[in-house]
Amino acid sequence: MKTKQDRDEYIIVIGCGRLGSHLARLLSKARKSVVVIDKDEHAFHRLSDEYSGFTIEADAVEIDTLLRAKIDKADVVVTTTNDDNTNLMIAQIAKTIYKVPKVIARLFEPSRQPVYEELGIDTLCPTILSAEALRNTIIGEETGDLE
Amino acid sequence: MKTKQDRDEYIIVIGCGRLGSHLARLLSKARKSVVVIDKDEHAFHRLSDEYSGFTIEADAVEIDTLLRAKIDKADVVVTTTNDDNTNLMIAQIAKTIYKVPKVIARLFEPSRQPVYEELGIDTLCPTILSAEALRNTIIGEETGDLE
Repeated sequence: MKTKQDRDEYIIVIGCGRLGSHLARLLSKARKSVVVIDKDEHAFHRLSDEYSGFTIEADAVEIDTLLRAKIDKADVVVTTTNDDNTNLMIAQIAKTIYKVPKVIARLFEPSRQPVYEELGIDTLCPTILSAEALRNTIIGEETGDLE
Repeated sequence: MKTKQDRDEYIIVIGCGRLGSHLARLLSKARKSVVVIDKDEHAFHRLSDEYSGFTIEADAVEIDTLLRAKIDKADVVVTTTNDDNTNLMIAQIAKTIYKVPKVIARLFEPSRQPVYEELGIDTLCPTILSAEALRNTIIGEETGDLE
């Protein structure tokens, strides 16, 4: 039996905006199996030549789209659209219906984080991450853990 | 003579959106002297009670506003508005005219980064930071430095 390290992890990225496309590229460079879903075909132009994964032009809010992306086989689903509700809805489907082991949702409104936590969905809030990085740059690492 | 560590660092944050307000709060909690500038008075509602710094309701693109904020005394200026051009313009004024030691600009379009570098302006790109954090979460730290 293969260990987790040996297994070819399969990752679905929802949304091919700045964040989704950049993430897809990084994962692709790390030789992961990646599928990016976006309902706007023009969004895929953001993917550079370095991206060697698949793309699906469809609305990821539709179950059919998620099935086409083989969500039942996914190890990780990351929702990166610009809308918290869309991200939460798809993350919830991935977690609750398809039992995807790791689900991460981009989150604009940090105050909603507890809802996600209760559903077993990890969150990434670019605002908090960026503010903390800036604070550490300004204050310096020796006092960066003051919070 | 005081060392850099002893000195009360004076920081100007331009823009009181999600990022600016969160950063201001973190710096304020770390007992730094902070001024936040935004042209929209409603933006200051984002600052929580934990924020003990000053606010200036004015357009930071105007030199008068920057002078009111005592930019000539600032140790750090961070531009966090939603517009790359506004951030670059103010960062450039801070760096070139007022010789602010540390200037950091939020950057939406990573491809423009070299321009900032040439001007001695540090940049923070939330998209890149977030994509890298997601990659490290997904791939794990042992392979997180693959890029």
